[in-house]
Amino acid sequence: MPKIDILCLCQQYDLRAVFGPGFEAFDDLRLVTPDEVTDPASIRYVLAFRPAAGAFEDLPNVEMICSIGAGVDGLLRHPGLRDDMAVVRMINPQQAEMMAGFAAWYVVGHHREMHRYRALQAERNWQSPAAPRLPSQFPVAVLGYGKMGQAIGRALGAMGYPVTGWASRARSQDGVQVLSSEEGLAQALAQARAVIGVLPLTDATSGFFNAERFAMMRDDAILVQLGRGGHLVEDDLIAALNAGRPALAALDVTQVEPLPRDSVLWSHPKVMLTPHIASDSDGAAIARAVSDSIRAHRAGRQPEGLVDRQRGY
Amino acid sequence: MPKIDILCLCQQYDLRAVFGPGFEAFDDLRLVTPDEVTDPASIRYVLAFRPAAGAFEDLPNVEMICSIGAGVDGLLRHPGLRDDMAVVRMINPQQAEMMAGFAAWYVVGHHREMHRYRALQAERNWQSPAAPRLPSQFPVAVLGYGKMGQAIGRALGAMGYPVTGWASRARSQDGVQVLSSEEGLAQALAQARAVIGVLPLTDATSGFFNAERFAMMRDDAILVQLGRGGHLVEDDLIAALNAGRPALAALDVTQVEPLPRDSVLWSHPKVMLTPHIASDSDGAAIARAVSDSIRAHRAGRQPEGLVDRQRGY
Repeated sequence: MPKIDILCLCQQYDLRAVFGPGFEAFDDLRLVTPDEVTDPASIRYVLAFRPAAGAFEDLPNVEMICSIGAGVDGLLRHPGLRDDMAVVRMINPQQAEMMAGFAAWYVVGHHREMHRYRALQAERNWQSPAAPRLPSQFPVAVLGYGKMGQAIGRALGAMGYPVTGWASRARSQDGVQVLSSEEGLAQALAQARAVIGVLPLTDATSGFFNAERFAMMRDDAILVQLGRGGHLVEDDLIAALNAGRPALAALDVTQVEPLPRDSVLWSHPKVMLTPHIASDSDGAAIARAVSDSIRAHRAGRQPEGLVDRQRGY
Repeated sequence: MPKIDILCLCQQYDLRAVFGPGFEAFDDLRLVTPDEVTDPASIRYVLAFRPAAGAFEDLPNVEMICSIGAGVDGLLRHPGLRDDMAVVRMINPQQAEMMAGFAAWYVVGHHREMHRYRALQAERNWQSPAAPRLPSQFPVAVLGYGKMGQAIGRALGAMGYPVTGWASRARSQDGVQVLSSEEGLAQALAQARAVIGVLPLTDATSGFFNAERFAMMRDDAILVQLGRGGHLVEDDLIAALNAGRPALAALDVTQVEPLPRDSVLWSHPKVMLTPHIASDSDGAAIARAVSDSIRAHRAGRQPEGLVDRQRGY
């Protein structure tokens, strides 16, 4: 039986090398690079993250595009995306857990003021806080409560932090109250000592973190923004931090990446930057997710990460 | 009905003020300080952490001593402790979760090299790791797998870290393999990128972290020691760090606390110190645990945290 080709457009990674350990286990699938395609009409599956503008032009029969990222905002804005192409985002529990650890590092660091101890150590000063810093007194709001948000909620819950979720649909999820609407947002932000952003980037959430939202936060809160650069109005953040609300911002994503050298974010004393590293998927996990999606599609089932293109995620 | 007096010997805290919110709910219990005791023979319950040498001399009828700490090593070594006194350690799930967050901060920080990003930010350098730093590739050993260890295991598991426990009794606990014996220890330490110490301090574990144990660790491991200062041979640690194995040590406890100003630990570049703050209990939680213990005792049941004095925890 001939193998099913998956055209890999993620040229920023040597995905075939990375995929090896995963894809060798899938006898029926084969990853091909653009220069290996002899018959473009044969390509029905594409693996992509931020494909070039003309990437789909010569591929008349693409049925499904699998994103190697959890966010598909870049893919959905692609001018060559046709209505009959299914888009699937990466569902990788390990990636969500990795993001949970990253978020938790900032939450615990801010809550316990861990940076202070290096300075105290330099002074040979065995000074503890005046009162215990109990996690129960440090509520966390997780904005976006899909797979990523839920993993963050589970990890923070295991450390004793009271977690409130915020999402498009209000519900109780594994014991966490998930609020929705502007009223729910105001309620979550008014209490939170840490606000973690893992929203999908859609028309509705573009520019989400703006002056109005910062004004709803506590002045002792940290914003940990792990979604997309497009969520954040960077000028509003700088103004808000300068005005003292929120107290700190940790940004793993920026409007333009890599962040331009002349950005004021680099040198702002209340901004902590990381280069879009909060979470990642390894080749084996990508291979597993992609093969699951393709098999589901071929069997007439709905892949787990199938994107609702109207909703945008 | 007269209230049952609980003599509070924890004079380092204003526990009555702290207790208020908790103890007001317990009509039958009353916290008294030593100067309020008119009839020492009436005292059957004592709340203590590290009581003074003669603390029990004038108290002929003490039946139970409740520790406000999770560790009772100091209490069990007390010269005035009589065989007929029950000793109960603090069982507080919130305290265990708090410790889990503290431990996780060091695990994630070391794993993701979080300190590097501040330096990169200062250089305006958007540089990410050459390969994703997956939690699945960063095994953690948790030495001591009681309530504290289990809470740490749960939190790290929720962040994708492979956890191996080590304790006096080998078992599988909530999906975590708990090893025992010297062979199990060698196996756990040989793999671990982070070694978290939450052992009880007993005759068997005194001086546990010594040259022999450090030689069993990886040279890229971090030791996160949250148990008791008595577990650690500080000179051996300094020699081991200087020899390059383990890579780092985070110590929340030291042989003498506060750590003397002339200790070499203060200035060692591979040592990170915190002043015994990893976890704590608030008054309400102490009140709840103590009242549970006293009620169990009065009803002829075994309090949850009852210490096996032979075993030492």
